[in-house]
Amino acid sequence: MPHNKINIQDKLSKFSEHWSPRVIAEMNDYQFKLAKVEGEFVWHDHPDTDEVFIVICGELDIEFRDGKVTLGEGEMYVIPKGVEHKPVAQTECHIMLVEPRGVINTGDVTSELTAQRDVWV
Amino acid sequence: MPHNKINIQDKLSKFSEHWSPRVIAEMNDYQFKLAKVEGEFVWHDHPDTDEVFIVICGELDIEFRDGKVTLGEGEMYVIPKGVEHKPVAQTECHIMLVEPRGVINTGDVTSELTAQRDVWV
Repeated sequence: MPHNKINIQDKLSKFSEHWSPRVIAEMNDYQFKLAKVEGEFVWHDHPDTDEVFIVICGELDIEFRDGKVTLGEGEMYVIPKGVEHKPVAQTECHIMLVEPRGVINTGDVTSELTAQRDVWV
Repeated sequence: MPHNKINIQDKLSKFSEHWSPRVIAEMNDYQFKLAKVEGEFVWHDHPDTDEVFIVICGELDIEFRDGKVTLGEGEMYVIPKGVEHKPVAQTECHIMLVEPRGVINTGDVTSELTAQRDVWV
């Protein structure tokens, strides 16, 4: 079988839309996604799953109802399931997300920022 | 609640042993681990799960019975479940692993390289 590696920067070079996660890999029933983000996202939560954010470049604030965390390059955070959060990037930031297949980026909230699922790059 | 981020380089600075994965985060029943590797690992597979390798720095060869892939910094690979593989690093390489909680690093093979599970850093 072919052994194809995944190059994160190469994948990032193939899209430019903000808040529109692209799947780059699947492991069991989990997906690894890349996203370019800038500005404010919407408050939402994922009632059934934790969600991992890893910052590839730039800086990402994740606001919570009771505080905030600021992630720089090479920093990660696990959002516990059911915890409301709002990602905010003052300038463009590139992130990797890890979560189960089928998760909607805005959780239970429908927004103009709700992205199509399962879009690969 | 406290919002504690995880800094990958900071976690890497806290251990030096080779082939001894340290857990840095859990997402649902999955774990994110860091490892420092150098030299040849043992042939093994994980019959029940895929396994993700992401290279943080250095270069990692993953040998398969029918080929090989070489991962540099920022490159990743999903080892499908049941596929025999042998990681090899010519010089020290730092990697992130993502897999379900409880996976043994040498799979079904018992070796002097078999590491204790669930060691956090």
